[in-house]
Amino acid sequence: MASRAPRHAGTSPANMPGEDAGGRRVVLMAALEAFAEQGFHGTSMRDIAARAGMSVSAAYYYFPSKAALLQRIMVDVTRDLIAALEAARAAADQQPGAQLAAIVRAHVLLHTERQRESFVGNSELRSLSARDRASVIGLRDQVSAIFKQVIAEGRDQGQFDCPHPAEAVLAITTMCTAVAGWYRPGGRLAPHAVADRYAALALRLVGCRT
Amino acid sequence: MASRAPRHAGTSPANMPGEDAGGRRVVLMAALEAFAEQGFHGTSMRDIAARAGMSVSAAYYYFPSKAALLQRIMVDVTRDLIAALEAARAAADQQPGAQLAAIVRAHVLLHTERQRESFVGNSELRSLSARDRASVIGLRDQVSAIFKQVIAEGRDQGQFDCPHPAEAVLAITTMCTAVAGWYRPGGRLAPHAVADRYAALALRLVGCRT
Repeated sequence: MASRAPRHAGTSPANMPGEDAGGRRVVLMAALEAFAEQGFHGTSMRDIAARAGMSVSAAYYYFPSKAALLQRIMVDVTRDLIAALEAARAAADQQPGAQLAAIVRAHVLLHTERQRESFVGNSELRSLSARDRASVIGLRDQVSAIFKQVIAEGRDQGQFDCPHPAEAVLAITTMCTAVAGWYRPGGRLAPHAVADRYAALALRLVGCRT
Repeated sequence: MASRAPRHAGTSPANMPGEDAGGRRVVLMAALEAFAEQGFHGTSMRDIAARAGMSVSAAYYYFPSKAALLQRIMVDVTRDLIAALEAARAAADQQPGAQLAAIVRAHVLLHTERQRESFVGNSELRSLSARDRASVIGLRDQVSAIFKQVIAEGRDQGQFDCPHPAEAVLAITTMCTAVAGWYRPGGRLAPHAVADRYAALALRLVGCRT
């Protein structure tokens, strides 16, 4: 496969910090596209470089390996999810029902926007090194912990009738994540409508009395 | 990679119909294992044959292509799911709440047993030909239709307070499918306990009054 000229032809990317971030982003987007279409094991750095419109060596300048790209994609989307959940909690009424509705909405909205990252995150956890997998699982545990905490507060305050909170957290987080799989932009419902309906379903799931 | 001797060394598999089914099964299991670990695009018929302990030509005797193996895996598990849901409905009380609990239990149980097939089914739908994909989606629509029908009956009979049945079906089927992703044999809960808790969650989700 012929590689195209690097974007920084004739100039070391190391001298262009402003364009470095842009170059990293181009490689990341190319890797995401390739992993989503062909899978991690079916993708080479050469494929990624070709999709990014750069030479293989330019792609390697930005990321040391295909594995580093996968790790970055999975860490970034999970960190963004955690930030979105925390912002939603902070902006919502302190009442547990309002808190749960807010984090479910935020979770669903992110999954209507980051469909490919969610797909790669679910299908390629197997492809991370043990160390990278542990770091991604640690971040996912933080996502679950936010739901656990809100549900625990609802139970403690007598507002949620939820005898099995661990399964309620699993059910809610997985049904929200799966939105990335079936949602189609321009479909029957706008993202906010899906988010509102899922928030209502989650409140029922935890037996919210209010 | 050196291929090992075929299991039917010296004998044409075509002369051994009893062992044909066994041979097909060995190739299917090897393909499932390879697709789950390396992805469809990262797997060759050579890999599958090596895992199956047969020559590449013996593997091709049973299945004309890697794509045919993927299609067979996805069709078989989805047909088995439909059969399990129909059997569960037939064995349960006719009341919509009992019907929904029965199909949720059956759905969850199958996903605690067929974890790899579920994973490959979700991660490799992209890798099927347009025609095979349509046939698998058609079978999945049959799964959804069973849930839709039970929820419609519950609404018609005034037993379910479920204003958005389409989203309820999506939420229930995806949370049940996701059990394949987190369930670990020998973990905190036995499959039947997970199935019972999920059935209770699904009844809440549809606003079952009984």
